[in-house]
Amino acid sequence: MNGLMMQQPLLISSQLEFAARFHQSVEIVTRTVEGPIVRTTWSGLAKRVRQLANALSASGIKRGDVVATLAWNTQRHLELYFAVSGLGAVLHTINPRLPPDQLTYIANDAGDVMLCFDTTFLPLAKHLASVQTPIKHFVALTDDAHLPKDFQGLRSYESLLVGQPETFTWPSFDENTASSLCYTSGTVGLPKGVLYSHRSTVLHSYAICMVDALAISGQDVTLPVVPMFHVNAWGVPYAAAMVGSKLVLPGPALDGVSLLDLITTEHVTSALGVPTVWLGLLAAAKTKQVKMSMLQKVTIGGSACPPSMITAFQEEHGARVLHAWGMTELSPLGTANVLLPKHASLSKEERLQVQLKQGRPIFGIDLRLVDDDGKVVPHDGKTSGHLEAKGGWVASAYFKSDDHSHHDGEWFATGDIATIDGDGYMQITDRSKDVIKSGGEWISSIDVEHAAMMHPAIAQAAAVGVPHPRWVERPLLVVVKHKDKEVSKEDLRAFLETKLVKWWLPDAIEFVDALPIGPTGKVLKRQLREKFKDYALP
Amino acid sequence: MNGLMMQQPLLISSQLEFAARFHQSVEIVTRTVEGPIVRTTWSGLAKRVRQLANALSASGIKRGDVVATLAWNTQRHLELYFAVSGLGAVLHTINPRLPPDQLTYIANDAGDVMLCFDTTFLPLAKHLASVQTPIKHFVALTDDAHLPKDFQGLRSYESLLVGQPETFTWPSFDENTASSLCYTSGTVGLPKGVLYSHRSTVLHSYAICMVDALAISGQDVTLPVVPMFHVNAWGVPYAAAMVGSKLVLPGPALDGVSLLDLITTEHVTSALGVPTVWLGLLAAAKTKQVKMSMLQKVTIGGSACPPSMITAFQEEHGARVLHAWGMTELSPLGTANVLLPKHASLSKEERLQVQLKQGRPIFGIDLRLVDDDGKVVPHDGKTSGHLEAKGGWVASAYFKSDDHSHHDGEWFATGDIATIDGDGYMQITDRSKDVIKSGGEWISSIDVEHAAMMHPAIAQAAAVGVPHPRWVERPLLVVVKHKDKEVSKEDLRAFLETKLVKWWLPDAIEFVDALPIGPTGKVLKRQLREKFKDYALP
Repeated sequence: MNGLMMQQPLLISSQLEFAARFHQSVEIVTRTVEGPIVRTTWSGLAKRVRQLANALSASGIKRGDVVATLAWNTQRHLELYFAVSGLGAVLHTINPRLPPDQLTYIANDAGDVMLCFDTTFLPLAKHLASVQTPIKHFVALTDDAHLPKDFQGLRSYESLLVGQPETFTWPSFDENTASSLCYTSGTVGLPKGVLYSHRSTVLHSYAICMVDALAISGQDVTLPVVPMFHVNAWGVPYAAAMVGSKLVLPGPALDGVSLLDLITTEHVTSALGVPTVWLGLLAAAKTKQVKMSMLQKVTIGGSACPPSMITAFQEEHGARVLHAWGMTELSPLGTANVLLPKHASLSKEERLQVQLKQGRPIFGIDLRLVDDDGKVVPHDGKTSGHLEAKGGWVASAYFKSDDHSHHDGEWFATGDIATIDGDGYMQITDRSKDVIKSGGEWISSIDVEHAAMMHPAIAQAAAVGVPHPRWVERPLLVVVKHKDKEVSKEDLRAFLETKLVKWWLPDAIEFVDALPIGPTGKVLKRQLREKFKDYALP
Repeated sequence: MNGLMMQQPLLISSQLEFAARFHQSVEIVTRTVEGPIVRTTWSGLAKRVRQLANALSASGIKRGDVVATLAWNTQRHLELYFAVSGLGAVLHTINPRLPPDQLTYIANDAGDVMLCFDTTFLPLAKHLASVQTPIKHFVALTDDAHLPKDFQGLRSYESLLVGQPETFTWPSFDENTASSLCYTSGTVGLPKGVLYSHRSTVLHSYAICMVDALAISGQDVTLPVVPMFHVNAWGVPYAAAMVGSKLVLPGPALDGVSLLDLITTEHVTSALGVPTVWLGLLAAAKTKQVKMSMLQKVTIGGSACPPSMITAFQEEHGARVLHAWGMTELSPLGTANVLLPKHASLSKEERLQVQLKQGRPIFGIDLRLVDDDGKVVPHDGKTSGHLEAKGGWVASAYFKSDDHSHHDGEWFATGDIATIDGDGYMQITDRSKDVIKSGGEWISSIDVEHAAMMHPAIAQAAAVGVPHPRWVERPLLVVVKHKDKEVSKEDLRAFLETKLVKWWLPDAIEFVDALPIGPTGKVLKRQLREKFKDYALP
C-alpha cells in the first residue's frame, strides 16, 4: 500500500524557482573577473537563468548534453549551475588547475559539447580549442566589450542572453537524471568522473541546511570561497537558493586582503573554504588589525584543519569553526563537527581535541570501518579501519569507468583509515596506502609525523613502512631539519618516546635535505617507500 | 542519462538505525503513564524497537497492516512509531479526544487490526472492543503488573517484548510505501485520513531539521509537547532520531507545573506545542517565580500565537519564539517564521508584527494565493486569496475517500485565506468559509473580531457576512459584553472606526448573551450565519 502524498521529483529547477518566488529580494553579490562588484537578487538571477536556458536551447543544448565550465565563483557561473541542470543537461565543472593533457582527457571523457570559461582561463580554452574534443561552442563569461579577440567562433555570454525571454517552462523529468559532473583529481592515474543526479543534489542540499551539518541559512550572508569548480562548491549554491541565503561570490580574488574586504563590506556571517585560504585571510586580518566580528561561522574542509586555525577564528574573531569532511564521491558532505551538550563541561583544550576530529555523519550517509579482510570493526574511538561510506549522495560508480575497485556493490571505500567513537565522531588517521602495518596492527603514519613535527628542530617529517622479517612492516621516519637547528637521532628518538606508544616508535630515523613533493603540495610517500624498500632496519 | 549515485530508498527504519549507530548514548526521557520518569538511549530504544518488530511479526502483523495507537508521548509510543512503520505496516495514531462514534468510524475506515493504548484510554479501548471493528489484537502500553483486569484477551506491551531478540533485519521496500495514517478532526463531516509515506516522512524530517525551519538538532534537548497522536508530533520523533536529539516525552502530564518541572530538571532547550499548553506553562513559571533560562527556543503552532505569549517567552525567559504553521494534510510543516538579517534594524514592536505572521514556506512546499475564480493573485503582503499548497509532503487525496474537492490535481486547497509578502511571509487572515465578500472585495472576519476585542467592554466577538442587495455581503458584528461592563452600539462603532478601514466597518452590531461554541472551542460561525441569514441591515 502506497501513501497518498503528492509525487514531485526532486529537481534543481525547483530550487531556483522557489528562490525566485519566496526569496526574491535577497542579494547575490559578485566580485567579477572584470573587476567591479556587481549585485543582483534571487529574482533577478532567476530571470537571467531563464534567459540562459532559452539561449542554451536555441544553441541546440538538449537533455543529456554536457556543458563544461572553467570558471570562478561568480553570478554567471551560478546562472549556469541552474540553467544547464534545469534543462536536464549536465554541468561539467572543470578544475582549471589540472594540467593541459588531463583537461584534454576529461573534455573527451565527459563528452563536453560547450565550454563556458572565464577570460582568466583563455589559455586553457585555447588549448582545448586546439586539440580534438567534442566541444562545438566556446563561450567567454563576459560581455562583448571584454571579449578576447583572437579566438575564432568565440561568443560572449552576455551576447547569448540578449533578447531572450525572461520566462522559461522548466521540463519535469525523473529525479535520477544526471545533473552535474565533477572529476576527482587523483594523484595516481587519470581523473575519474562523478556524475551527480538531481535527487542526490537536492537530498544533499537538505542535508547541508540542517543545523547539525553546514547549517546553510537565510539568516546568514554566505561566502563560499570553496570553488564552484570543486564538488559544486560543497553544494552551497543549491542550498542557498533553497533557504534564500544572501550569497557573496569572491570571483578570482582569493587572496586574504580581497576576502577580508568582502567579508567586512558585505557583512558576511558564514564563510566556507579550505585551510589554505583561511591562512591568507587570518594573516590579512592580523596585518590590518581587523576583528571580523560579523563572522559567526567558518566551515573548514578539504583537508585537516590545524588547531591554531580553530583557535584563531574562535578566540581572535569570535567565529565558531565547523570542521567538515567530504569527498568528490560524496557530493561532498560526509561528516560535520558540531559540539554536543555533553561537551559544554569540557576544558577549552579538550573541546579543541573534539573539534579536530572530522565530525559525525549526517543522516543520509552511513559510515563503517573494516579491517583488511572486510570484517567490521567497532566504533570505540580507538580501533582504526578502512573507512567506507554509503548513502543517497554517494557515487555508485565512476563515469564511463570499468574501475569498480572502490565499490563492493553496497559500500564505497574512501581510501582513508579512520576511527569512529561512541558519539559518532569520525577521525581520519591515515590514507589506506600510507598506513604502516606492523604485526597485524596498524600504525598511523600521520600520528608519527605529527609527533616528530613537535620537535623544534624538525621542519618536515614523513613516516613510511619498510619491510621487516618478523613484523611485516616497521616505521621508518624520514625528516628534514630546520636549516639553523640541530638534533641527533638519539635525541629525536628520546623525544618521540614521550609522545608515542612504544610499538609506534620508528625503528630508524633518516635525515634528508628535502622530501619529494607532488603537484598538489603533498609528500609523495610512494616515492619514499620505493626509495627505502630495501632499507636495512637495525 | 541518469546520475551514477547510490539508490537508497528513504525509509523510517534507516532513521532509527542511524540513531542506534551514531547517537547511541543520547537519552530519551519519559514521564510515564504509571508515574515515574524512565530513561533509555537511542541505542536502548533501538533494541526494544527491534524486539517489538519481532513481536509484531510473531503476532501476524505484516506489510500494509494498520496498527492503531491511543497514546501519549512516551517511549513506548516512540517504539511503535519505528517498529510499525519499519515493518512496512501503517501506524494509525488516533486522537483520543474524538467522540466514541468517530472512533468507531475511523477504526473501521482505517482497517485497524491492532490497537495499542495507554491505560488512561481504557474506556475508549473498551468502547472499540464492544463495537464492530477489524481490530483483532488489544495491547495495553504497560507491564503485566499494571494490566487492566477486566478486558478479555488484553495483553501488556511489555509481555509482548519478553524473550524477543534485540536484532531484526528491516525489510527494504519502495519509499512511497505508506508509513502512517492520521485523521483530520474536521468540524464539519466525518474525519478524513491522511496517509503518509516513508518518502514524505523522511523528506519532511530533513526539512524540519533545517536552520530556517524547526531547526531540530542534536545540540538540543527537545520536548515535543505536541501530541504524538496529532500529525506525528509535527515529525519531531523522526527528526530527533536523524540528528540524535535528546528527547523528553511528557506522557499524560501536560499541565504547566509538570512541564515546568521537566523543562528545568532535564534542561530542555527546545520545546514545541500549541498555544494552550504554553499558557499553562507560563502561568506555572510565574507562580513559582522560575525563569526558564535553559529554554532557548519555543515553537508555537496549531493555532495563531497571541503576541503576549511571544513577548512573555522572549522577554521573561530569553527564549526565541518560532511561530510555525501547518496542517495534517501537510505532514504538517508548511511555514516557519524566522527573522531575516533585514529585520535586525526594526523596532521591537515591528519585529513582533513580523513574528506574528505564520512564516515563510520551507523548500519542498510551494504556496500560492488564488481568487474565487482560481486566478493567481500577487504576493504583495496586501492582496488576500485562497491559500493553496503543493509539495512532496502534501496529501494528494484522502484515504478511501471520493472527496477530491480540496485537490485540483496539482494544488491542495488549504481552506485558509491568506496574504504572502515579498519576503515570502504568509499570514492567515481568515478561513475561506468565514471570509466576508463585499462588492468583490474580501473582509477578514478575524481582523474585525480582533478590533472589537480590543474594546475593554467586549468579551467575545464574531463577524459574519449577511446578505446585502448591493454589496452581496456586508459584515454583521455579534458581540458578548463582559458581565460587569457596558458599551453602546454607537460607542463601539466609534471605537472600531479608529481601528478599521471604513469599508470593513460592520454595517450592524448585535449584542448577545453567548456565542455558539463547538466541541473544539471554536465559535460556530455557520450557526451564526444561519441565524442571521435574513437579518435586515440598516
